Amino acid sequence: MKEHTVTAFDEELGQIGGLLNGMGELAGAMVNSATHALLAGDNALAQRVVSDDALMDSRQRELDDRAITLIAKRQPMADDLRAVVGSIRMAGDLERIGDLAKNIAKRVGAVGQDAIPRTLSHSIDGMAQLVLEQVRGVVERYTAGDTAGLAALRNDDERIDVKYTAVFRELLTYMMEDPRNITACTHLLFCAKNLERIGDHVTNVAENAYYVLSGEQLPADRPKADEMAAPTA
Amino acid sequence: MKEHTVTAFDEELGQIGGLLNGMGELAGAMVNSATHALLAGDNALAQRVVSDDALMDSRQRELDDRAITLIAKRQPMADDLRAVVGSIRMAGDLERIGDLAKNIAKRVGAVGQDAIPRTLSHSIDGMAQLVLEQVRGVVERYTAGDTAGLAALRNDDERIDVKYTAVFRELLTYMMEDPRNITACTHLLFCAKNLERIGDHVTNVAENAYYVLSGEQLPADRPKADEMAAPTA
Repeated sequence: MKEHTVTAFDEELGQIGGLLNGMGELAGAMVNSATHALLAGDNALAQRVVSDDALMDSRQRELDDRAITLIAKRQPMADDLRAVVGSIRMAGDLERIGDLAKNIAKRVGAVGQDAIPRTLSHSIDGMAQLVLEQVRGVVERYTAGDTAGLAALRNDDERIDVKYTAVFRELLTYMMEDPRNITACTHLLFCAKNLERIGDHVTNVAENAYYVLSGEQLPADRPKADEMAAPTA
Repeated sequence: MKEHTVTAFDEELGQIGGLLNGMGELAGAMVNSATHALLAGDNALAQRVVSDDALMDSRQRELDDRAITLIAKRQPMADDLRAVVGSIRMAGDLERIGDLAKNIAKRVGAVGQDAIPRTLSHSIDGMAQLVLEQVRGVVERYTAGDTAGLAALRNDDERIDVKYTAVFRELLTYMMEDPRNITACTHLLFCAKNLERIGDHVTNVAENAYYVLSGEQLPADRPKADEMAAPTA
């Protein structure tokens, strides 16, 4: 009887893990599509990201419902409880990543098709690729139980922050060069900020994943640089 | 024995409610101080908001820990479980509000003391007052069990979005007028966006509060306008 209960719990936890994995894959696909849509001015692709966000929301609700039902029905303790609560939290951050990707996609129309100079487009793409690597890496490492990899990935967020600060400065120069660039660059500024925030949510996922796997918290302070260090007018 | 268990549960739930209330008050104070600091160029006040955010984080962790312990220890079902899970979610949004207030405060130095023209300052303050009203109102109405008030408050977020769009457009004109305004206005743009996002988190709190109190969801679609409708270059 005891063994049966444990098995049923593990099975249900496995289903939650499967949902979480699916959300991670969807988050990666959304970030990828949103960036492509932005840099290519592809409105149809942007629209797909917007509808994917609805899918993401419904998956999160399903995961939440299952997790809460599992807690209420099986009353897990210690490690098991930590895994369930951790899944709820990671799903929350993955949903936020989808939301931020959607926000990028929604700006595609406002930025306009040929508004992005090649060098700027290159910088934004470089930042996006780094973010995408992090999004894809975090769920993979969690699934693989790779705590060392999660700790390293969390610290890699600093690289995104550095790229973001560079993009921020670059956008300022375009705006200063020609007032006609201002509106488009403003939307790109928000897109870059959204990418930077996606990075922050990846670090949250990494921290929760590390905690679920090891029962220990990663050290609270990590290096954090942003555009607040940019020169003022 | 049964009655004892119920009383103990209610008492522990009451403590969680007290923590949530405290987080709501802190969120309001942080939004208020961050806006004052921004508009007055008050670096010392800004610094207080930054340290308040650490307090907010630790309160959220305490609430989370208590809520999870309560679920594991008392195995609440139905309404009781909904109240506990709802508290976790509301605390998550209040923590995000504190985070956004901190982000505004961190920009005080970058914006600079005398960079904000009076009319612009007036617009931002008007938006901030509306946001503050919402932040303060939501926890009050939850505590008072005022479901109708929560539904009304949720819909009032539209007024913030309208103000935000106006501030966004106003900032664009300042940037176009004089390139020397661009850096400061860019930081103000992020501040305005943060205020708008605080409004979104208030609606999340209102939705969760409504659900906890009534067991029903507010209708999913609500009016949502933002700066994506602004004219492109």
